[in-house]
Amino acid sequence: MKIIRVERRMLAANEEDARELRRGFQAAGVRVFNLLGAPGSGKTALLEATLRAAGPAHRMAVVEGDVATAYDAKRIAATGTPVVQIETHGACHLTAAMVRAALVKLPLDSPRVLFIENVGNLVCPSSFDLGETAKVVVVSVAEGEEKPEKYPAAFLAAEAVVISKLDLARACGCSVKRLKANALKVNPVLRVFITSAKTGQGLKPWLAYLAGDRGEAW
Amino acid sequence: MKIIRVERRMLAANEEDARELRRGFQAAGVRVFNLLGAPGSGKTALLEATLRAAGPAHRMAVVEGDVATAYDAKRIAATGTPVVQIETHGACHLTAAMVRAALVKLPLDSPRVLFIENVGNLVCPSSFDLGETAKVVVVSVAEGEEKPEKYPAAFLAAEAVVISKLDLARACGCSVKRLKANALKVNPVLRVFITSAKTGQGLKPWLAYLAGDRGEAW
Repeated sequence: MKIIRVERRMLAANEEDARELRRGFQAAGVRVFNLLGAPGSGKTALLEATLRAAGPAHRMAVVEGDVATAYDAKRIAATGTPVVQIETHGACHLTAAMVRAALVKLPLDSPRVLFIENVGNLVCPSSFDLGETAKVVVVSVAEGEEKPEKYPAAFLAAEAVVISKLDLARACGCSVKRLKANALKVNPVLRVFITSAKTGQGLKPWLAYLAGDRGEAW
Repeated sequence: MKIIRVERRMLAANEEDARELRRGFQAAGVRVFNLLGAPGSGKTALLEATLRAAGPAHRMAVVEGDVATAYDAKRIAATGTPVVQIETHGACHLTAAMVRAALVKLPLDSPRVLFIENVGNLVCPSSFDLGETAKVVVVSVAEGEEKPEKYPAAFLAAEAVVISKLDLARACGCSVKRLKANALKVNPVLRVFITSAKTGQGLKPWLAYLAGDRGEAW
């Protein structure tokens, strides 16, 4: 079918751009995390808490992807972290070409950790490689325990899942244990982090993961 | 550009299918609501509460769209409402052709109100006409006050917005007033309903809207 062939061509073109990005990231020794999640899953709040806990010495930077507005980039900038905004003007995911164009404007030459916060969308972004070290999917306790099975692609593509807004679990009647089990049912090798950006709970193992889990000093 | 031309062709083909559906819906006198919203925004919970409050005499029916699983259709069936599931197997939105194929399997001949619960995605579904009477966007207080401006397309395409999970507003630190104002900033003619499926708050004006706001007995 013609539509499917065109989609394949789009994905193939993106793969090429992503390979080029990945080579660049690896040569520069930067760890790159592509953050996926639904709108309101808490991706930006997780980044704010992470960046504040890590501090500027760790040379983190952020590429912010949004359909519209620069609200999230402003929140990141307020933590003192170098950030560049991509406004997709309606597009439902980031592409490697968008990231490449944005990196030129990033006001930090050699970050050690680069976060790419994707458009809030639990479906489309998981198909697009951005040259990242790993995809991380963020899912909040407010979204419901069954989300991993209902949106399996993101959980399959990811190396890690961050279960966010732990502080709301009781009010939402969400069993974090079941949400975690459902994520592992879809992808048994997922690394699971359970966090609250509000209280700071669970950030320590997450920071260790970002550093490569190899005892680097944070 | 080739990609854009193909996207236009896809949308044009859908428009044709949607026109056909709309003619059928209008001839049958059924009011059809296309429910959009992020994963976990509370679309299914809103439907459960709505169907239970309205009761079977009102001849409501549901088409459930999901990327994977039939969890939501089972929840709807438990209310005693005729329901048919569309599993999109990865696709990020419903099309009019999918709805047409599903309607054949709907176990109710002449509903008065038909809900089409779209795939959980605040971006893509807003571009696809399903022949509906109106699109309704569901946004929960847990998603954050700025969502309408960050995802304007869904709020522009909709006739009404349902602000859901009112019972969580305090725990989430969400100002419902600001969320409502932000929705109206994007689309000043939106009908706004503020609801909690858990407590039943705000369902009455929502039910009146579904009935056409013309004093039909519910």
